[in-house]
Amino acid sequence: MSDTDDDQELGITESKAGQTGKWYAEVVQKAGLADYAPMGGFIVTRPRGYAIWERLQENLDQMFKDDGVQNAYFPALIPESYLEQEAEIVEGFDPEVAWVTHAGTEELEERLAFRPTSESIITPYISQWVRSHRDLPMRVNQWCSVIRWEATDTKPFFRTKEFLWQEGHTAHRDEAGAWEETTTRLGQYEKLYEEVLAIPGMTGRKPDHDKFPGAEVTTTIEALMPDGKSVQAGTSHYLGTRFAEAYDLYYTDEDEDEQVAHTTSWGLSWRALGALIMTHSDDQGLVLPPTLAPEQVVVVPIWQSETKDEVLDYAAELAAELDAEFRVHLDDRDERNPGFKYNEWELKGVPLRIEIGPNEVEDGEATLVQRPDGERTVADRDAIGEAVQDALDDVYAKLYAAAEETVEERIHEAHGRNEILGTLGRHGGYVKTGWCGDEACETEIKDQIAAEIVMLPLDEDEEPVHETCGVCGEEATETAYFAKNY
Amino acid sequence: MSDTDDDQELGITESKAGQTGKWYAEVVQKAGLADYAPMGGFIVTRPRGYAIWERLQENLDQMFKDDGVQNAYFPALIPESYLEQEAEIVEGFDPEVAWVTHAGTEELEERLAFRPTSESIITPYISQWVRSHRDLPMRVNQWCSVIRWEATDTKPFFRTKEFLWQEGHTAHRDEAGAWEETTTRLGQYEKLYEEVLAIPGMTGRKPDHDKFPGAEVTTTIEALMPDGKSVQAGTSHYLGTRFAEAYDLYYTDEDEDEQVAHTTSWGLSWRALGALIMTHSDDQGLVLPPTLAPEQVVVVPIWQSETKDEVLDYAAELAAELDAEFRVHLDDRDERNPGFKYNEWELKGVPLRIEIGPNEVEDGEATLVQRPDGERTVADRDAIGEAVQDALDDVYAKLYAAAEETVEERIHEAHGRNEILGTLGRHGGYVKTGWCGDEACETEIKDQIAAEIVMLPLDEDEEPVHETCGVCGEEATETAYFAKNY
Repeated sequence: MSDTDDDQELGITESKAGQTGKWYAEVVQKAGLADYAPMGGFIVTRPRGYAIWERLQENLDQMFKDDGVQNAYFPALIPESYLEQEAEIVEGFDPEVAWVTHAGTEELEERLAFRPTSESIITPYISQWVRSHRDLPMRVNQWCSVIRWEATDTKPFFRTKEFLWQEGHTAHRDEAGAWEETTTRLGQYEKLYEEVLAIPGMTGRKPDHDKFPGAEVTTTIEALMPDGKSVQAGTSHYLGTRFAEAYDLYYTDEDEDEQVAHTTSWGLSWRALGALIMTHSDDQGLVLPPTLAPEQVVVVPIWQSETKDEVLDYAAELAAELDAEFRVHLDDRDERNPGFKYNEWELKGVPLRIEIGPNEVEDGEATLVQRPDGERTVADRDAIGEAVQDALDDVYAKLYAAAEETVEERIHEAHGRNEILGTLGRHGGYVKTGWCGDEACETEIKDQIAAEIVMLPLDEDEEPVHETCGVCGEEATETAYFAKNY
Repeated sequence: MSDTDDDQELGITESKAGQTGKWYAEVVQKAGLADYAPMGGFIVTRPRGYAIWERLQENLDQMFKDDGVQNAYFPALIPESYLEQEAEIVEGFDPEVAWVTHAGTEELEERLAFRPTSESIITPYISQWVRSHRDLPMRVNQWCSVIRWEATDTKPFFRTKEFLWQEGHTAHRDEAGAWEETTTRLGQYEKLYEEVLAIPGMTGRKPDHDKFPGAEVTTTIEALMPDGKSVQAGTSHYLGTRFAEAYDLYYTDEDEDEQVAHTTSWGLSWRALGALIMTHSDDQGLVLPPTLAPEQVVVVPIWQSETKDEVLDYAAELAAELDAEFRVHLDDRDERNPGFKYNEWELKGVPLRIEIGPNEVEDGEATLVQRPDGERTVADRDAIGEAVQDALDDVYAKLYAAAEETVEERIHEAHGRNEILGTLGRHGGYVKTGWCGDEACETEIKDQIAAEIVMLPLDEDEEPVHETCGVCGEEATETAYFAKNY
C-alpha cells in the first residue's frame, strides 16, 4: 500500500465548526477508537478506544477504593419479577429492555432482562448481607455493560444501545449518610472530569420530571460541549427508602430496633469518552490529555541515509530513557516519511511529539512539539525528562483552559420566553432563568428550540435568579439551567 | 448480635475429605466469595470473591500487555446470522445459547445471541482492520461475561451459566505464527497457575472429539484437585484457516498476493477461582496464596483493660509500617475477642496473622502465625518487614508443595480395561495409557467410571506410553490421560 492510499484515508475531511456530528464520527473511526457493529445502535470499541476507557476506569476505580467502595459482579440477566418489584423502575425501563426469552430451543418460564441498571438485583443481596447497623454503610460497585434499547440515532459513546459503565449501589443508616454518599460520588465524578479529562463540570440536580425512575433526588454533572450542547456526564441518585422498602433492606439499630436503610446509586458511562473526544479534538483528529493518552510521547527520528545510524541511536536511547517515566513510542518505521508520521500521530491524539534530526544530535538537544497547538520548544538532552513533564503539564493546562472558556462564555441569564429562546439560539450553552417548577414551562421551550432544563442548583434552598418564572411569569421557586443536550 | 450467633454461622461444618462438594459450597458462601442468584445456574460474585478475581486479572492482563495483546470490547449480543457463518460454532453452541428476541414490546427481526464466545463477531472486525502483512500479527482480548446454558448442577465458579472470562483472538500470517501464539498463551496460563495461584498445571491437547468447535487443535492446562478430579483450567486453540475463511480474513503479502490468515483463540475463566478455592482451602475455611489475598496480613491486638492503650498503639504503628509494603488489616474491633477474630480471618483466608499482646510490646517483638498450618515465629519489631516477607514466601511455597504432591502421587500408568478402571477407582488422578485414537475406547471407560480422556501430550509425535491401546488392544497412536473431571 502506498503512502498516497493511506493519506486519503488518514485525514479528517469534515470540520469541527462545520458538520460537528459528521466530524465527530470521522474522528472516532479514523483515530481507531470505535466502529459500528452489525446491529444498529451497537458499537465495537477498538483497542485504542478501550485503552482510554481502561485508564479512565483505573482513575475512578482508585478514587472509589480509597473511599471504601468494593467491586462485585452481579448477573447480566434479571428476572422480570425482580424488575417488577419496584414499580417506577419497571415503568421507566420497560420500553428499553432487551428480553432473553429462550435458551437453546427451550422457552424460559420467566423472561430475563439484560440489565438496564441493577438496583433490582443488587438491592435484595445487600439486604441479605446487611443485618445490623455495624454492617452499614455498605458500598458495592460493578463495572459492566447495560442495554437500553433506545430508538434514536447511534452516536458512538454518546448514545448506544449497549454501553459500558460503572454502577455503584450503597446502603446507609439514615438520610444524612445516604445524602453524603450521593454528593461524595458526584464530587468524585467532578474531580475525574477536571483532573483527568481536562473538562470543567457543573454540578446540579435534575428537575423532578427528569429524575432516575424511583429516585428522591438525581444529581448530575453536566459538561458543555464546544457546539453549545450539554452532556449529562454522570449521575448520582439519592433513592431514599423506596428501594429499600421494595427489596426488603432493613437493619437492626443500636437499640435492637428494625430500621429501613436509605440507599443511593451512581453511574458514569463511556459517554465520558464521547465528551472527551468532542471537547478537545480538532480538524487534524483526536486530541487527548496526557492523563489518558495511550502514548504520551512519540519520538520521530528524521534522517538521510548518511545520518540514519546516529539519528536512530540517539532517538532510541532518548526514548528508552523517557520510557521509565512516560508512555513513549519510538516511530522508527522505514517505510514512512516524517511528515506522514506527524499527521498520523496527530490524528491519533498523541500529546507530545519529539523530533530528532541530525541537528538535534549534533547540539545534544531535542525538539518538542505540543498537540494541539503545535508549540515548539527545544530542550537540552540532559534535562529531557523535566522538559517532557513541563510540556505535558502545559498541554493539560491549555486543554482545560480552552474547555473552561467554552463554558464561561456560554452561561447567560435570560428572562421571558423570547429572551430565553433568543439567547439559546444565539449562544447555545446554558441559559439561567427563574422557574416555577412546572414541567409545562419546560415543554414550551423544548417545543420551540429543543432545549430543556438540564440542571437546577444543587442547593435546593438557593434563592432563584429571578423572582418570577422566565416562561410563565408565576412565582419562581428555582433557578433553571436550560440547554440543548446530547 | 452476640458472638454465639455468629460463631454458629461462621464455622465450616462440612469436611473437605468427607463431602467435598458440600464443603466447597460452604467455603464459598461463608468466606463471602459468592452467593447463588435467583435464577438457577447463576451466581452473585461478592466483593471478596471479586477482589481475588481482579487481582488474578491484573496478573494475567499484564502478561498479555507485555506481549503485545490489546484489550477491546465487542457487543455482548451477536446476530444469529453471524453465528451461523461458521457451521461448527453454531452446532457446538446452539443448545446453550441464550436468545434475546424482544426489545421493549417489539419482537426483533433477527434473534441476538448473548455471546457464548466471540469468534463470530470479533473475526469479521479483525478482517476489516487487517489489510497487509504489516498489520499482522493482530491480537485482541476482551474481559467479559459469556452465557452457556448448561443444564448441569451449579457449582460456583466451576460451573455457572454466566461466567466471567477473558477471550483472546489473534490473526497471523501463517501456521507457524499462529501455533506459536497458541502455545505462548498456554504457557502464560501455566505461569499464572504456578506463580500466582500456587497450583502446578499440566499442559496437553484435547482429543479431536473434545476440541473447541471448529478448532484444528485445542490445547489445555489441567489442574488436579485434591479429590482426584481434573479441572480444565484454561484452553488455547489453534483455529487454522477455517474461521478466517468463514469470516473473510485475508491479507496482502509482500508480493501483493492475497493470503488467508491463520487464527487462534484462548480463554481463561473464573473457573480458576474454583480451582484456587478447591486446591488450598481446608476445614477451617478459605486458604489463599499471598499473591491473591485481599489482605495478606491481619494484625490482631490482644489486650486487657490495663494494657489496652499500649498494645493498640504498638499494633497500629506496626500495621501502618507494614502497610507501605503489604496489604494489611488491623482488626481493632472492641466487640470481638481475639479467638473470634482468629477464626474469622482463618475462615476468610488471610495468609498471615500477627498477634500483638503485652509480651510482644514489652519484648519489642511480634508473633507471626501462618495460614494454613499455624506455624508460629517470633520476629523482632525492627526487622518486621523482612520477617513478614519471609513468612508469606513460606506460605506460598507450602501451598505449592502440597498441591504438587497431590499431582505427583496421582499419575499412574495402567494398561488394560480392568487396570485402568481399578487405578482410577483407587487413586483418582490421571491414568496414562496407550490409545488407538478411537472415541469408542474413551466411551467404554466413561460409561463405567465417568472418567474421560482429559489430555494427550502436547507433542503429537511423542511415542505412546504403550504400544497398544489400553482399552481395545489395537495399535496405540497416542498416550491418553484418563481422569474424572469437573
